[in-house]
Amino acid sequence: MKCGIFHTPYHTPNRRPKEIFDWGVTTAQVADEAGFADFMIGEHYTLAWENIPLPEAIIAAAALRTKKIRFAPMAHLLPYHNPATLAVRVGWLSQVLEGRYFLGVAPGGHHTDAVLHGFDGLAELPAQMAEAIEIMEKVWKGEPFRHKGPHFQAGFPGPNDMPGYHVDIADNAPWKGRASMEIAVTALSMKSPSMKLAGEHDYSPISFFGGTEQMKSHWETWSSCAKPRGYNVDRNRYRVCRDVFIADTDAEAKRRALKSGLAETWRGYLMPIYKRFNLLQGIIDDSGTGVTIEQIDMDWLAEHVWLCGSPETVTRKLQHLEDATGGCGEVVVNSHDNIDDPKPWIESLQRLAKEVVPKVKSPFMTSAQGSAS
Amino acid sequence: MKCGIFHTPYHTPNRRPKEIFDWGVTTAQVADEAGFADFMIGEHYTLAWENIPLPEAIIAAAALRTKKIRFAPMAHLLPYHNPATLAVRVGWLSQVLEGRYFLGVAPGGHHTDAVLHGFDGLAELPAQMAEAIEIMEKVWKGEPFRHKGPHFQAGFPGPNDMPGYHVDIADNAPWKGRASMEIAVTALSMKSPSMKLAGEHDYSPISFFGGTEQMKSHWETWSSCAKPRGYNVDRNRYRVCRDVFIADTDAEAKRRALKSGLAETWRGYLMPIYKRFNLLQGIIDDSGTGVTIEQIDMDWLAEHVWLCGSPETVTRKLQHLEDATGGCGEVVVNSHDNIDDPKPWIESLQRLAKEVVPKVKSPFMTSAQGSAS
Repeated sequence: MKCGIFHTPYHTPNRRPKEIFDWGVTTAQVADEAGFADFMIGEHYTLAWENIPLPEAIIAAAALRTKKIRFAPMAHLLPYHNPATLAVRVGWLSQVLEGRYFLGVAPGGHHTDAVLHGFDGLAELPAQMAEAIEIMEKVWKGEPFRHKGPHFQAGFPGPNDMPGYHVDIADNAPWKGRASMEIAVTALSMKSPSMKLAGEHDYSPISFFGGTEQMKSHWETWSSCAKPRGYNVDRNRYRVCRDVFIADTDAEAKRRALKSGLAETWRGYLMPIYKRFNLLQGIIDDSGTGVTIEQIDMDWLAEHVWLCGSPETVTRKLQHLEDATGGCGEVVVNSHDNIDDPKPWIESLQRLAKEVVPKVKSPFMTSAQGSAS
Repeated sequence: MKCGIFHTPYHTPNRRPKEIFDWGVTTAQVADEAGFADFMIGEHYTLAWENIPLPEAIIAAAALRTKKIRFAPMAHLLPYHNPATLAVRVGWLSQVLEGRYFLGVAPGGHHTDAVLHGFDGLAELPAQMAEAIEIMEKVWKGEPFRHKGPHFQAGFPGPNDMPGYHVDIADNAPWKGRASMEIAVTALSMKSPSMKLAGEHDYSPISFFGGTEQMKSHWETWSSCAKPRGYNVDRNRYRVCRDVFIADTDAEAKRRALKSGLAETWRGYLMPIYKRFNLLQGIIDDSGTGVTIEQIDMDWLAEHVWLCGSPETVTRKLQHLEDATGGCGEVVVNSHDNIDDPKPWIESLQRLAKEVVPKVKSPFMTSAQGSAS
């Protein structure tokens, strides 16, 4: 099992962009040194709690300070970009990273971001995303075309498009070609259409954790769409995002977690959203505690949802998750704002990578290549 | 007089994006340490000779390695971006740089970039740029609006746009407010409409050098549009881009320049463009040599166009430029691909900043505040 970071990002709304930028670079550097495989950065435009509209800035800056970790915008919100511009930028940046880049794509899920871009809501976004993907794939092919669609126009210049003198056209396809670039998609709700889209397009699936039944459903949807198309249906491609806090003992981990950015994010930001969109039932069912939504507090989350405890406890909880769901290839830690007190958080990340993840046995890893589905 | 760098960028077409990225960061670092005021980076999508589609990547990475130098995309090509996305990204990045950011805007001037974005040519671009600017200014205001125009749609969320729970809206206006962010525009041809646009909008003028008459014309156009509107018509705001190569002696500077990336760019890339668009007459007139376009070679450029020579010679040439044109506040060195032999180039940059620019007297600096127009 590998581990990664999901830098959503969560920051308290008072943070300045410079603090956000520096914290992102620092977190990537810590993760790289600890042995994390991936660092994914969200893209949002209007949300003070998640204020990184330009994940490429942190990817590029952190590239200078890291050696092995792979970066991804997770995700570029395709309806909010000129798709030809984005395709070239993605290809170019993947070449700058030379193998340490993969791509997340999404339609955008926040109402105020949609309003910023002139939409009345989210309904029109999936169709625009589909058209954007079609254009980006064509641009990456590097062959002449013209596209005038309902939402976008694009093209690629050929020999007949010279401006009176010869122009050498840059190769800004993804590094080592489109087939070498992983594309991934995230999903949260049990019936998320994103998992179907991912399976149909050979994009890797990522679950924002919503309980073991949700994970099983996500995998089932994804694999049942991917398998008939002949794609590589390998559980190593499957990632799940979790909240994690590790310290010497269970009591100390909980004490630290409850005064950390993790608890602050849940208290100040996530609970209203999870309640509004009814996203808590899966984790309530998982807990077996039979609480009502109104009874959920930080203490309950630390006990029943977060992977919180000593290295032994967190190893046991992760092993249970693997066994209960069939397993995934990577546990991805949700990143939180621990700018004011980074040490306990950094220690937790380091212990996950060094003391926990190496001990978890993935149930699907029965053969040497580990590619059983 | 100050000095800056214009990282167009020119690179031989065989360069990998990683080399381009690293060279950009290195050049910014050298310039910062030498005392350059500004580092501007072009944005192009299809040109192998100028292959940086994402100047923000180099700006963000170089921000970590520099202390005082200011950065600008020069320029973001507005018709090729979703304007709401770009406005938020510009504001956010300017806040990351906390005072070390300014913005270049342009319609896009390369035919193959236009084709990539689905245009048949350049004719439609200025109208799209105008609409994009209008939207960006509205987004930066942070007040609710909706825009559905001929080319773009956008908006800004207000209290009535909440998705069923309260959302804190991020403040991604430019650092310290829109009025604190310099916007600049470049121009090359004598009658470039960009200088009129700049004067009318209070954007700073930058000339790609085309002879002293062109500089005088650019300043005249800009100041005659800016003055009646009450803008600050200060020659310190005026920048001119020049090719520069400095070494111990005139002979050594010429020898180094002719085997450097500067000569390679002119030979392999710029001459065909300058010939195609008839951009050489201004520098021929300036030289007083009466050569024909066909007679122009690298040796002639080194003698008559590039600011090439010992520190004393380049100081004299720059002083002549200031006296002949009325003066500008900043000489901006065109950056070239000296990746394979960086030392002579770096020495040249350092000597410009330390031995030449401090000795040039700007004719308009007659009073302490230096704001005579």
